Amino acid sequence: MRSFAVPMQISLIAAPPKDLLLDDGFRFMHGQTIAPFTIRYETFGELNAERSNAILVCHALSANAHVAGKYTDAEDERPGWWDGLIGYGKGIDLDKYFVICANIPGSCYGTTAPSSIDATAGKPYGSRYPWPAIEDMVHSQKILLDRLGIEHLHAIAGGSLGGMQVLMWAACYPEFMDSIITMAAGAAVPVQGIAWHIIGRKMIESDARFNGGDYYDHPEPLRGLQVARMVGHMTYLSARALQSKFGRRRRGATRQFEIDSYFEYQGRKFAAQYDANSYIRVQAAMDEMDLEEQHGSLQAAFAKWRGRTLLVSFDTDWLFPVVEVERVENAMVANGTPVHHERIASPNGHDTFLIDYDLITPAVTDFLSDVSLPARLELP
Amino acid sequence: MRSFAVPMQISLIAAPPKDLLLDDGFRFMHGQTIAPFTIRYETFGELNAERSNAILVCHALSANAHVAGKYTDAEDERPGWWDGLIGYGKGIDLDKYFVICANIPGSCYGTTAPSSIDATAGKPYGSRYPWPAIEDMVHSQKILLDRLGIEHLHAIAGGSLGGMQVLMWAACYPEFMDSIITMAAGAAVPVQGIAWHIIGRKMIESDARFNGGDYYDHPEPLRGLQVARMVGHMTYLSARALQSKFGRRRRGATRQFEIDSYFEYQGRKFAAQYDANSYIRVQAAMDEMDLEEQHGSLQAAFAKWRGRTLLVSFDTDWLFPVVEVERVENAMVANGTPVHHERIASPNGHDTFLIDYDLITPAVTDFLSDVSLPARLELP
Repeated sequence: MRSFAVPMQISLIAAPPKDLLLDDGFRFMHGQTIAPFTIRYETFGELNAERSNAILVCHALSANAHVAGKYTDAEDERPGWWDGLIGYGKGIDLDKYFVICANIPGSCYGTTAPSSIDATAGKPYGSRYPWPAIEDMVHSQKILLDRLGIEHLHAIAGGSLGGMQVLMWAACYPEFMDSIITMAAGAAVPVQGIAWHIIGRKMIESDARFNGGDYYDHPEPLRGLQVARMVGHMTYLSARALQSKFGRRRRGATRQFEIDSYFEYQGRKFAAQYDANSYIRVQAAMDEMDLEEQHGSLQAAFAKWRGRTLLVSFDTDWLFPVVEVERVENAMVANGTPVHHERIASPNGHDTFLIDYDLITPAVTDFLSDVSLPARLELP
Repeated sequence: MRSFAVPMQISLIAAPPKDLLLDDGFRFMHGQTIAPFTIRYETFGELNAERSNAILVCHALSANAHVAGKYTDAEDERPGWWDGLIGYGKGIDLDKYFVICANIPGSCYGTTAPSSIDATAGKPYGSRYPWPAIEDMVHSQKILLDRLGIEHLHAIAGGSLGGMQVLMWAACYPEFMDSIITMAAGAAVPVQGIAWHIIGRKMIESDARFNGGDYYDHPEPLRGLQVARMVGHMTYLSARALQSKFGRRRRGATRQFEIDSYFEYQGRKFAAQYDANSYIRVQAAMDEMDLEEQHGSLQAAFAKWRGRTLLVSFDTDWLFPVVEVERVENAMVANGTPVHHERIASPNGHDTFLIDYDLITPAVTDFLSDVSLPARLELP
């Protein structure tokens, strides 16, 4: 087995994405069904004979099923979104674990989305696509695992919206996995994040070209989405990172602030590859999740969850401040659940879980190495 | 004289606003001249025979010259924007001081603005209105004071953008006043504020109806301005205030978040009374001001300022964090200027200077009562 201390030079070649086709469709929590429905997913590493080494990874708002590696050296500009944490010899070590990630309902990376063609209507779903809940994301992952014959997970891991899915798993399917890992996530988005999200969605919805969500006959990206992305981007950055990376510096000899130029670039890049209907739906699902409201208390929400838990928070994360992670921690501790809350000091705010692998890897390595692989599952 | 300790029951009846008409126009720093040009201003209290008791108040982004009192009980819904601090027996006591406030160039409350009719063209200036600098605001106030025969000020006071004007006064006309008071203001907006401002301006400018700034033939307010105001509003609120005032609460029996409903109300109210061209111009002026960049260092910027200085900061203000106020303080201290930096703990963030008069009044009262009125000015 490769040791974490030895840097890997071999880059992972990812297998092509796979599709699970649900002919009978997928029924959303609020009642609508889309049929047929495709779930796009990727897997990494090998499922062991006991089917006991599977780790489900849940992705965040703008990510997808492509967690690690490059499809080929030429095809991928950058490796998967959690490549720094997942790979041979990395924090989630593919020598030991089989990793699965599925594109969530609502998102536009292969799973049936608002931009997908509704064969019956002969045009994209657009405004007719349901507004998914976090439960739908978790449910779609459960369906996939069932179809793959994976009856138990070693762990579920995710950051931000992905971490919220992990907590929803613990509330909905507390027997299905041995351990969970969340980063930069709580059981509900605090009001400051909600307010920014709402403002971003208003920008998209007030773009004259948005047309209530039926805009697919116009090829250009929506300006509203570009600017909404800038708002989102701000919530991922700490004041300290903004100051050190940009400060009040101007771009070259111009009077344009560097932060302005950077946001224009990032906003345009994002809007060219992400869909506005997906953005407002996935983000709204994040805002709507509130395990405390749903169950009366967080302790009640996690009443049946007794697995080992790693909660990772970042001191400069103001979307999910440390105190929000502590609320989850306290509820689980009160339930007698074995929780480790790793408080990490980092300059990079919410996005630390996507940037500072030297900071997050030791906590994950320690947590996973301390868990004996479950033996209770039999071969099918 | 009325004592601060005795609450005043007599409400101030404000005199009607006055206009100074500059027939030759006003020349903006970047070269353009608008002629004729009106400066709208208000005065409160009485100028003493020595003309030595005048205090200039500088207003912030969305405010105007109407600082205190009501015009009549019927006419004004609410008293002037700093009524809690300025009045008979209040922190800036009209029994002692004569207060002047002028609507700044760019703003849309009586001073010639982008929405004002350009008589030559027979339509509003719109996109042709210059982009003012903070220096223009200060310069317009200086012109007004000159015309009023006020050759020296007892003090200049302001919060936020108003406080930035005060600091610009100290840099541009260091001999003109005896003392200055700033609240929630620094010598430059830090990058986090700039980023939010830029995002707000992009929202306005990308509103299809904005039309580059020439939208006055459309009567309805711009949606872009409504949403931009929500962004601005967010920068004035602390996370703590958002949490205690709104949290994740829903509006009545609906699923709409209360913060959403509140922002919609505030955004619509603001856009109905404020002009988009004014908003982007006044805010951009705020972002462009950078005394350090302009003078090489803050110590150089304030090299000639030796008057008494009160800097007030709020621990939950993240638009102008305490550390930004400390930079001004340190520069003045290094210059040997008598500075008092009052650090106030408050839940209300940047807007504390407009809300918590019980917190800010003692600092102002102490500061002003400790200054002997200047005797160096003669009657004209």
